[in-house]
Amino acid sequence: MKPTSRDIRTANRYEVLRQIIAESPTSRQELAVATGLSLATVATLVGELLDLGLITEVGFEDSAGGRPRGLVAVDPSGGALIGVDIAETYVHVELFDLALNVLARADEDLRPGESLPEQVVGHVAAGVGSVVAQAGVEAARVLGVGVSVPGQVDRDSGVAEYAPNLDWHDVPLLDLLAGHIAHPLYLDNPLRACVVAELWFGAARGRGDAVVVNLGTGVGAGLALGGGLHRGVSNSAGEWGHTTLVLDGRLCHCGGHGCVETYVGAPGIMQNLRELSPGSPLLHPGDQTATIDALARAVAEDDPVAVKTVRETARYLGAGISDLINLLNPEVVVLSSWVAARLGEPLLAEVRRAVARHALRRPLAATEIVLTPIPTDPVSLGAATFALEGALRSAGRRTPRRSATARSRTAPPS
Amino acid sequence: MKPTSRDIRTANRYEVLRQIIAESPTSRQELAVATGLSLATVATLVGELLDLGLITEVGFEDSAGGRPRGLVAVDPSGGALIGVDIAETYVHVELFDLALNVLARADEDLRPGESLPEQVVGHVAAGVGSVVAQAGVEAARVLGVGVSVPGQVDRDSGVAEYAPNLDWHDVPLLDLLAGHIAHPLYLDNPLRACVVAELWFGAARGRGDAVVVNLGTGVGAGLALGGGLHRGVSNSAGEWGHTTLVLDGRLCHCGGHGCVETYVGAPGIMQNLRELSPGSPLLHPGDQTATIDALARAVAEDDPVAVKTVRETARYLGAGISDLINLLNPEVVVLSSWVAARLGEPLLAEVRRAVARHALRRPLAATEIVLTPIPTDPVSLGAATFALEGALRSAGRRTPRRSATARSRTAPPS
Ligand SMILES: [Zn+2]
Ligand SMILES: [Zn+2]
Repeated sequence: MKPTSRDIRTANRYEVLRQIIAESPTSRQELAVATGLSLATVATLVGELLDLGLITEVGFEDSAGGRPRGLVAVDPSGGALIGVDIAETYVHVELFDLALNVLARADEDLRPGESLPEQVVGHVAAGVGSVVAQAGVEAARVLGVGVSVPGQVDRDSGVAEYAPNLDWHDVPLLDLLAGHIAHPLYLDNPLRACVVAELWFGAARGRGDAVVVNLGTGVGAGLALGGGLHRGVSNSAGEWGHTTLVLDGRLCHCGGHGCVETYVGAPGIMQNLRELSPGSPLLHPGDQTATIDALARAVAEDDPVAVKTVRETARYLGAGISDLINLLNPEVVVLSSWVAARLGEPLLAEVRRAVARHALRRPLAATEIVLTPIPTDPVSLGAATFALEGALRSAGRRTPRRSATARSRTAPPS
Repeated sequence: MKPTSRDIRTANRYEVLRQIIAESPTSRQELAVATGLSLATVATLVGELLDLGLITEVGFEDSAGGRPRGLVAVDPSGGALIGVDIAETYVHVELFDLALNVLARADEDLRPGESLPEQVVGHVAAGVGSVVAQAGVEAARVLGVGVSVPGQVDRDSGVAEYAPNLDWHDVPLLDLLAGHIAHPLYLDNPLRACVVAELWFGAARGRGDAVVVNLGTGVGAGLALGGGLHRGVSNSAGEWGHTTLVLDGRLCHCGGHGCVETYVGAPGIMQNLRELSPGSPLLHPGDQTATIDALARAVAEDDPVAVKTVRETARYLGAGISDLINLLNPEVVVLSSWVAARLGEPLLAEVRRAVARHALRRPLAATEIVLTPIPTDPVSLGAATFALEGALRSAGRRTPRRSATARSRTAPPS
């Protein structure tokens, strides 16, 4: 509930490793300055990271008039991390070294009607096998596999409780995956994956309160409050997509009416376009990706219907983001996921305009709205980061690679 | 941003004093069990509270086979705290002893047109003078005066930035008050006062994430996340009243349309009644309190228009509270402030029904919705608690009663 000394210690460990990843090589003295921690604390944490093999000593630098200072750097070959992004239409797998460089990628398409849990698990296992083989890493060097699945997730039991766009209810995903994958497994959803990616490598790094707005088929808002991920009491915080924007408005698959998602998720944007221009050639019925791509291209060419559709979408999105700003008073709002990536700057500009009309003066003045600066798939990166955080949480314990929330065939849950 | 060791220390100090207030006398051993802190930590914190004169040694109890255990209790006479609740139509002042018993009360009505800052400050000064005189406490024993003012507040500069219902913009309230009141002053708004009251003495005590929904003339949602108050980056988090419930709906005084407040604040409830029954005798035009009182009495008598009005209000409120549940996944939602107090159980029952229709299954299952258990004015109590927290923050510093956020004639801001 309230943070414990152990939470602080784990957070500080994250902070030091983040800094080393961002700037290698570096000295303990520089780390103390950058993180605001004492030199003694930094020295202890660096020792733990050395013991874990995540970083390595790489020589010395002169210090003016003093003893030479030892330098440490992240050890890219100290282990591999795998991030899995399960979406409605694909499974995307990436393998990273410890500097979070992508060493291998695998993509598996999910055809319509191919979203049964066993089918998806087969694709995940194939993708993980493929990236390990491509990268040529030994299985023992894989520190863990982070898996992102849309919807409501119980990460402790490893159950995908409700994934409407896959039509999943209470799927014991981690158990199913553990039947095929021998590495420690970590389950969570794309919202939280994107927040963790922004906290470690993106626009939320070093910020106080941040909100990561995910715009895809589904939409949600990952919350980074007080410098850490806000999960809520049962790990389901962030369901902004199912907050009401238009009472008694469009029917949502959650059973509600007028949810934010029905106006700004990819199918909602298609509906916005359809309402403005029912026969528009931009519309690719049944194909969200093609429609959003067509829209992005047409906006770039100043097509009036496309511009109007983006403006109308931004009107809804601006009201919904203003709700987040008024309620949470964040320092930064980050637009992420594939719809934000494709509609990009034109959407951002319209959203900023709409938010300026809706939000209250004081929280508005304290916030900036940006597109994610993460150049790759933030969901895979965030999922891999869950595995990295798992390895860091276990630092100093006897069996460092088998944390309470990790699951594998060789380390069954307690 | 992320919690520091010092934040943890302050939070632990709060926790120990809360426990002593809840259960006096008590031993260090019992406190360690109740708070989960080590006996050594508890002993240190108890020592600090003894040094501050907030608690006192009151004897010993036998421990089975061991040395007798020292008992401590809150020292009611160790100081006095004053809480000021500035509302649209009144100024309410309460003086508390350290067990947070009310020793004196003063009420000042604000007549229409009497809301100029200088006039309100005059009423506050008169109220504070009155309670000190009534209680017969020496001025030096007043640890501080907490002042709650509606709207957006910069608590560090002591400026009431935007109080729409008082028509205040950038009023340097703490400076004005310091011209009349010689005690340390703490400024914040009723949202945050109510959260702090619930955290210390109410339904949020010992809980993880909690939301305190304030239903008055204005409405808002105070956020207690991770066991502490979530302020946001510029201390304006909680403006749930100005999140959009009905896009393009009723005009709000904030300039927006369809804000939650326009449907569930007292004037919004009057509008709901007017739309259902334009000539209803329950309507007292221009008098919110009389209308809400009439509504409460009529509901108790099963008057169909009143029942329907409460149901319609709960429909809006349920949708808005579901947004909070879906977004934040709190353990408890507390209904507070005068409209909630007057409409009470009938409103609560309808709200629970509406939330069950709107909220997602997983966060809904983790949440309970309750009326505040605080029997007195939670705003005055919370405001007084700001002064108590101020005294506790300064524990161990050289000048304990002059914290950075306290302001008085004798202790000007640094
Ligand atoms: Zn929905
Ligand atoms: Zn408003």
